[in-house]
Amino acid sequence: MNKEIPVIYTPASFEHNPPFEVFNGREDTAQENIQRIISIIKALRKTDFANIQITKDHSLTWVELVHDKTYLDYLDRASKSAKEEEEKSKQKIQSASYPSVHPYLQNAYTTSPIGEKGLYVFDTYTPIMKNTFDVALESAACAITGARMLLEGQDVVYALTRPPGHHAEKGMAGGYCYVNNVAVATEFLLKKGAKKIAIFDFDFHHGNGTQDIFYERPDVMVVNINAMPNNKFPYFTGNEHELGKGEGKGTNFNFPLPPLVKDNEYHKAVQSSLDLISKFKPDYLLVSAGFDTHETDPICDFKLTTEYYKKLGRSIKSLGIPMLSVQEGGYATDVLGENVVSYLKGLVD
Amino acid sequence: MNKEIPVIYTPASFEHNPPFEVFNGREDTAQENIQRIISIIKALRKTDFANIQITKDHSLTWVELVHDKTYLDYLDRASKSAKEEEEKSKQKIQSASYPSVHPYLQNAYTTSPIGEKGLYVFDTYTPIMKNTFDVALESAACAITGARMLLEGQDVVYALTRPPGHHAEKGMAGGYCYVNNVAVATEFLLKKGAKKIAIFDFDFHHGNGTQDIFYERPDVMVVNINAMPNNKFPYFTGNEHELGKGEGKGTNFNFPLPPLVKDNEYHKAVQSSLDLISKFKPDYLLVSAGFDTHETDPICDFKLTTEYYKKLGRSIKSLGIPMLSVQEGGYATDVLGENVVSYLKGLVD
Repeated sequence: MNKEIPVIYTPASFEHNPPFEVFNGREDTAQENIQRIISIIKALRKTDFANIQITKDHSLTWVELVHDKTYLDYLDRASKSAKEEEEKSKQKIQSASYPSVHPYLQNAYTTSPIGEKGLYVFDTYTPIMKNTFDVALESAACAITGARMLLEGQDVVYALTRPPGHHAEKGMAGGYCYVNNVAVATEFLLKKGAKKIAIFDFDFHHGNGTQDIFYERPDVMVVNINAMPNNKFPYFTGNEHELGKGEGKGTNFNFPLPPLVKDNEYHKAVQSSLDLISKFKPDYLLVSAGFDTHETDPICDFKLTTEYYKKLGRSIKSLGIPMLSVQEGGYATDVLGENVVSYLKGLVD
Repeated sequence: MNKEIPVIYTPASFEHNPPFEVFNGREDTAQENIQRIISIIKALRKTDFANIQITKDHSLTWVELVHDKTYLDYLDRASKSAKEEEEKSKQKIQSASYPSVHPYLQNAYTTSPIGEKGLYVFDTYTPIMKNTFDVALESAACAITGARMLLEGQDVVYALTRPPGHHAEKGMAGGYCYVNNVAVATEFLLKKGAKKIAIFDFDFHHGNGTQDIFYERPDVMVVNINAMPNNKFPYFTGNEHELGKGEGKGTNFNFPLPPLVKDNEYHKAVQSSLDLISKFKPDYLLVSAGFDTHETDPICDFKLTTEYYKKLGRSIKSLGIPMLSVQEGGYATDVLGENVVSYLKGLVD
């Protein structure tokens, strides 16, 4: 029985403040906002098991194992451009870049600053601000520190990553994600000697980035439980028939579930997922932990209860595999912290 | 010497009224607006050579030769959805659909209505409203009627197409374009017995759709003079090295020009373009005629004069090839009509 769980965060998360998202051409509330981390930290501080620590790692070396260099260069340049624009603006309005034009060709190329916005960002929900590149690297560093603790013998660690990561593709930001934190931690562990890693993604939304990054890899199993792609973001992936490719065939699994799914029905998909992971016999288990499956989430339509996340945690922990949970989504900020705490209680119980 | 020029338009153009475009996440003035056709018709009515007629053709049969069926089905469905939404809305606010999420995978697929918005529309400038599909088909019908007149022996015809067409891809709307009018007229003429067609696109913006549609075709030469893609929309095409592919190798040419180009410098690219077209010996010449190269255009940065368009027209006419001009862009609505008239004067002189 664990007495405490290391929680790794970065104060840089509080500097990440998207002004709005754009849905169907109109400005809308930014759901991936600072209230999320405030809610989680506040709830964790009330527990007796959360050992909250700041990351001391740097992630760029490991991030480069996951993401294309051209993309990382773009994130860096776009962040610097936003900084310059903001400094030039007399009102000091936060500069935020949103894509307007997307590639209409396969293997498209452009050096236009406006064209690049669409080349490297696949939606209008994921703006780039002056500190975006730095904050995304810091978020990934939390996952690295968490993974390092597994190597040092911890069996349960929680990386409070914000911005989240699982929608970030090798070469594209999207879905509030810029750097794929869980993928970076995975590559880190493999470089440090791990042979096999399993990633279990229970965020409401399909982890398209994580799936794509490891789609042809036999050493990384990726299992998602997610909303049906004909219903919810990210729309283009998350189907049952996506089973991996080439050497990675048979190490990718999706359990798409319909709207309004409740604890019991959901848990069947969890058991199926954990069976697959157990048979894979990974050295480490990385969990993309999203709490937008909660019944009150403002942008999702599953109906899980706060109490259920404890059972979910306990079930995952029962596999007996050293595990790092990496924070993904969850937008009901009044209960997000409680949901995280409920899940982590399942891991320490 | 021509005494008159048939001008083909459709009253449906006046029903096409995009409420706004979205640039960098913010609402912006819709540049492709009704004032454009009002400006052109008004100026034409003052001339003694414009024989203004309404199209009586239907275009769907020919449109299907150019565009993917899945895309046309989407345009139809999305227009109907907008109609339903508008009828349901108590304020009768115009319903307009804008994409938010774009494919992050090659050969992406989705049946989600929100996902489809990004699958079939590549920018946030090209909304779909209740009458979009009908209006786009009507616009293409103007080009068909114009092409039919060439078959009947006319040597100069002007199709006042709105919405424009040259950015529309086989399977995607974008750049204010839904159906590629000039491509549809081209396929119509080929089906009716023409062997070779040349398309000369002098719109400020590169005609990406037209290029892609005929990129592997030896029977259709496409020549563009356009803004450099690292400077202006559509960003991903319009380079000199795009020369066609396969059997179409050597029948595609782009002359990208820098900002602030003036009449004389521009005319050198025109002469090079016309030389290529002349050597190709097409049966018909179709011209994608955009007037956003004008020195006062609000969204472009070439510096052509109204007077120059007459010289441009005269130069094209001097090739002696039966020609249909198809209206594309041009957003300086106070002078757009004069610019069109200046160009057409060059054709009747």
